[in-house]
Amino acid sequence: MKVQGKHYRTVWMEGKSVFMIEQNLLPFEFKVHEAKTYQETCLAIKTMIVRGAGAIGAAAGFAMAQAFIAKADPDKAKKEIEATRPTAQNLFYAVKRVYESADPIAEAQKIADEDALNCQKIGEFGNTLIKDGDKIETHCNAGWLAFVDHGTALSPIFNANNSDKKVFVYVDETRPRGQGARLTAWELKNENIPHAIIADNAGAFLMSKGKIDLMIVGADRIAANGDVANKIGTLEKAIAAREFGIPFYVAAPTSTFDLKCPDGRSIPIEERSEEEVLYQTGMSEDGLIRKILVCSPGSNAYNPAFDITPSKYITGIITEKGIINP
Amino acid sequence: MKVQGKHYRTVWMEGKSVFMIEQNLLPFEFKVHEAKTYQETCLAIKTMIVRGAGAIGAAAGFAMAQAFIAKADPDKAKKEIEATRPTAQNLFYAVKRVYESADPIAEAQKIADEDALNCQKIGEFGNTLIKDGDKIETHCNAGWLAFVDHGTALSPIFNANNSDKKVFVYVDETRPRGQGARLTAWELKNENIPHAIIADNAGAFLMSKGKIDLMIVGADRIAANGDVANKIGTLEKAIAAREFGIPFYVAAPTSTFDLKCPDGRSIPIEERSEEEVLYQTGMSEDGLIRKILVCSPGSNAYNPAFDITPSKYITGIITEKGIINP
Repeated sequence: MKVQGKHYRTVWMEGKSVFMIEQNLLPFEFKVHEAKTYQETCLAIKTMIVRGAGAIGAAAGFAMAQAFIAKADPDKAKKEIEATRPTAQNLFYAVKRVYESADPIAEAQKIADEDALNCQKIGEFGNTLIKDGDKIETHCNAGWLAFVDHGTALSPIFNANNSDKKVFVYVDETRPRGQGARLTAWELKNENIPHAIIADNAGAFLMSKGKIDLMIVGADRIAANGDVANKIGTLEKAIAAREFGIPFYVAAPTSTFDLKCPDGRSIPIEERSEEEVLYQTGMSEDGLIRKILVCSPGSNAYNPAFDITPSKYITGIITEKGIINP
Repeated sequence: MKVQGKHYRTVWMEGKSVFMIEQNLLPFEFKVHEAKTYQETCLAIKTMIVRGAGAIGAAAGFAMAQAFIAKADPDKAKKEIEATRPTAQNLFYAVKRVYESADPIAEAQKIADEDALNCQKIGEFGNTLIKDGDKIETHCNAGWLAFVDHGTALSPIFNANNSDKKVFVYVDETRPRGQGARLTAWELKNENIPHAIIADNAGAFLMSKGKIDLMIVGADRIAANGDVANKIGTLEKAIAAREFGIPFYVAAPTSTFDLKCPDGRSIPIEERSEEEVLYQTGMSEDGLIRKILVCSPGSNAYNPAFDITPSKYITGIITEKGIINP
């Protein structure tokens, strides 16, 4: 997709370096980050300079290729890369493919290209679910910033918009890290798609008022039975959507499926630092990016980063091969 | 309840002035605000210097008394006070009582005293629902800061703690204004009750993991059929609680009932400024209270402040007269 008129992917490799859009700085600053070693790429994944299922996968594949280029111990590197984000299925998938390949650099590049193509196809399939005038809710950021290009949950929306359907998107803020308010809103604005950011608390209310026609979210990992691990809050939205009879779709490439996980209970849930709940970062009135304490001083927070949505709440999974009924 | 060892109510009248704990400054600064006229008290209600069902009611009653003291047109004053927060049932109840009284100042005082006593009784009734070791989730702030004293949703928790039951409280952050993270957490810390702040998104996940035994929330208005208007997000929690078989209680004095409203559909929902979603205020690392933009610049937000929870999701309503099954 384009940024300031120029086409970008979220992550790419040139020579020995991996380049990534610095997503921690968005939406306030646009900057490209260079990771010169696989360890630097690991750090970028861990600190969420690159985030989102597909982009993490591509970055992890490139990191594994970097390890081969540097003649590092491939088993040690593989473990280090896998330890950066334990909930991300695409990461394991990409690392394994590059690890097993005779031509690691070409294989890593192929993973990135496939990711972009798959997301484009998800957009085409997903667009068939969208009617002119639909109001669509989405959670977190499963836009192109979360993949190499196009995105998953947002790809059908971009596709609908490009095919001249009028859509309106309600964007869940997605606390604690605010990926909806920051990244999804930024993507939609760049594409001139009408939208409004809502507090995560407002979802069920909007559904109860008939203001949501369709909900589309992404996925970090999908178990064999169709249970979906995704950003914390997805479960709550899925339950509310079913309660109000609103179709709830998950958009994800088939690489997100982990057939070794029979159901959601076997997917590990990452807990992140309480600081993400206690503090918020944003643009201060003096023009500086500042971090502020938004909670009562001295209180603790608990911060599970993902939840599991059982397949019974999911209307369908939009993949690059078609729409699957779980 | 006590602040720094001294007993306070959230709102009280001395002479012609109404005094209020400046809740917009909490939890970072403790300060008492003086409103010398009924117009100043109206402004304090509107700008949420005083907030929460009971505290708004008491403040509105005092405002009506101030109007009589100042020999203002009582009908005009009544309308002005009623216009400050249209969703708050206690406000209409208090203003009417003082308006119709032969001794407005004594009546306003009586309303405040009754509020404190009712909340104490809610605590006693509610405590019977709490078992030793219970993990309780609460939304927004229905603690003593929301009333004249003791609170509603938190009063049973204070009561349980004082009767030596061990409890742990999961505090919903309650975006956009963060009353849970700021006020409820502040109250719990002052009472040494173990607690953790969670992102609003985490509720259903904790319920799915068996980490919540009971949920208690407050109410801004209750319709004749038991439908409850409360802070945005209450509906979503109530739906999730029912899904996981977790008792969901509403704690509110009987004055919160509006028998003229047959059901939730007839309760008006206040929409507040999008700025509450777009910006967050908190303590910066330089020690100043700062406002930061937490969303993508140029995007809009939509900010309904309340939602309606149909009575079918509510296990019981804890009042000063006992626990009602809606």
